Amino acid sequence: MVTERRPIRLTKMHGLGNNYLFLDGLAEPVPPDDDLPALARAVSDRNFGIGSDGLILVLPPRDPGARFRMRIFNADGSEGEMCGNGIRCLARLVYDRGYTRETEFVVETGAGPIRPRLHLDGHRVTGVTVDMGVPRLERGMIPMAGPAGEQAVEVPLEVEAGGERSVFTVTALSMGNPHCVVFVDDLEAVDLERLGPAFEHHPAFPQRVNTHFTRVLNPERVRVRVWERGSGPTLACGTGACAVAVAGALTGRTGRRVTVELPGGSLEVEWAGDGHVYMTGPAAYIGDVVYDPH
Amino acid sequence: MVTERRPIRLTKMHGLGNNYLFLDGLAEPVPPDDDLPALARAVSDRNFGIGSDGLILVLPPRDPGARFRMRIFNADGSEGEMCGNGIRCLARLVYDRGYTRETEFVVETGAGPIRPRLHLDGHRVTGVTVDMGVPRLERGMIPMAGPAGEQAVEVPLEVEAGGERSVFTVTALSMGNPHCVVFVDDLEAVDLERLGPAFEHHPAFPQRVNTHFTRVLNPERVRVRVWERGSGPTLACGTGACAVAVAGALTGRTGRRVTVELPGGSLEVEWAGDGHVYMTGPAAYIGDVVYDPH
Repeated sequence: MVTERRPIRLTKMHGLGNNYLFLDGLAEPVPPDDDLPALARAVSDRNFGIGSDGLILVLPPRDPGARFRMRIFNADGSEGEMCGNGIRCLARLVYDRGYTRETEFVVETGAGPIRPRLHLDGHRVTGVTVDMGVPRLERGMIPMAGPAGEQAVEVPLEVEAGGERSVFTVTALSMGNPHCVVFVDDLEAVDLERLGPAFEHHPAFPQRVNTHFTRVLNPERVRVRVWERGSGPTLACGTGACAVAVAGALTGRTGRRVTVELPGGSLEVEWAGDGHVYMTGPAAYIGDVVYDPH
Repeated sequence: MVTERRPIRLTKMHGLGNNYLFLDGLAEPVPPDDDLPALARAVSDRNFGIGSDGLILVLPPRDPGARFRMRIFNADGSEGEMCGNGIRCLARLVYDRGYTRETEFVVETGAGPIRPRLHLDGHRVTGVTVDMGVPRLERGMIPMAGPAGEQAVEVPLEVEAGGERSVFTVTALSMGNPHCVVFVDDLEAVDLERLGPAFEHHPAFPQRVNTHFTRVLNPERVRVRVWERGSGPTLACGTGACAVAVAGALTGRTGRRVTVELPGGSLEVEWAGDGHVYMTGPAAYIGDVVYDPH
């Protein structure tokens, strides 16, 4: 039960179409913890609420090393750990509201501290870079069947889809979640609805897998069609874009800096010398909302 | 192209989960006609916009007999003629904003003048009644195959679904659009995903059909699962609720006043002595929005 009956001020933002309602807990009252799952479900509902992929709270930090704290509740009321598209929006929001003058600061999340970096054109935030961590290439870490310590770069994978068996050459890796990258010459010819589930539930991936059919446009630019584990075709998958860039570099198809074109827009990904993958993308306002059902 | 770049003030409301963004053209600037389809698509978009089933404009009337004018644009940018759930919300909105003290007034719509009637508890609008017109029972008017002048009340219909043939007893009629009502004892046992398309595309209905699987709880109350032509299972279908009540009365299963329970909530339907069907239902606020993408 949401006991909070007052109107609630929210801001709707999106990163590549992945959209969230933000509750600015530095300026607005924050409902009690117990109410947050129900509030997230209510505001996110596409028919009876405003509609969103979830509710993100901007909060004061608990850790002394952090400047802000982010909590994310999915549309089903479950609490998430982190979201690359969401934290870019949060970083723009706190900067635009004057809560910080810094263009790089630490945000405490359920996945640990994250340090977004803002890009400015004058005072306008044009993009945000987030350190997405270090890719894990060993099969045991993905996880993927086969010798736990070996990598899965350009390996054959036999896939059965629609009664048809084909062998694909794939590169698999983990960005905290499992990804399988398949380079193809003709992206439009990919039957995503048929192949996506066949990859997702392939026995080689015991925790299932996100699959990225990728066309290399040139060594600095690729185009991807995404099948997300549990979601199907989505507009954008941030960790997946990172996996694609790593796979491009590992196989010599691209350099270590790549523009990844996704259905929802583009991300810039760099697999830097420190081994970390840095992802830069947009953070856009949709509008301000006063949620007041009655 | 939406040339209007200023923030746009909107109000999100719903009737039984059918949700619209309202632009109050009596208080706010109205974008040029040419911009309205693109604006409707942009604000209705579930990922890059606020998200809704469409955009409704509240406008001054052109007809001298009307008090207000309603224009409705669907989420795909097409202009609709009328919407029962939408006009209830519009009627509440104009009353709450003080644009009229009357509880009954004429609204000019693409389907002609409509006269909503407000129900009040003190100053609070608790429901709105809309005259949904006169049902047409002749097969030629539905349209349904068979002798054009005959009714289709409790007639057998052979339906093939999933390779299985069954004969259903159905009542079909038009409320401006075609409806087929199927009374059943066990609503949960209805395989809507299998039967809905089989009815919708049945050769007896040349313009396809909305199908309502209906359980009579008592002569004043029924429960319905809806398959809407072109949309599949929906939360509520206003004209369908009217068709269900008419079918209930025609077959002696209900009286002429019926509460129709739909997945999104309940409607009160009366097939009155003047031959018209009057539908009463809720109109609820979700919140206020300032749409300002940047």
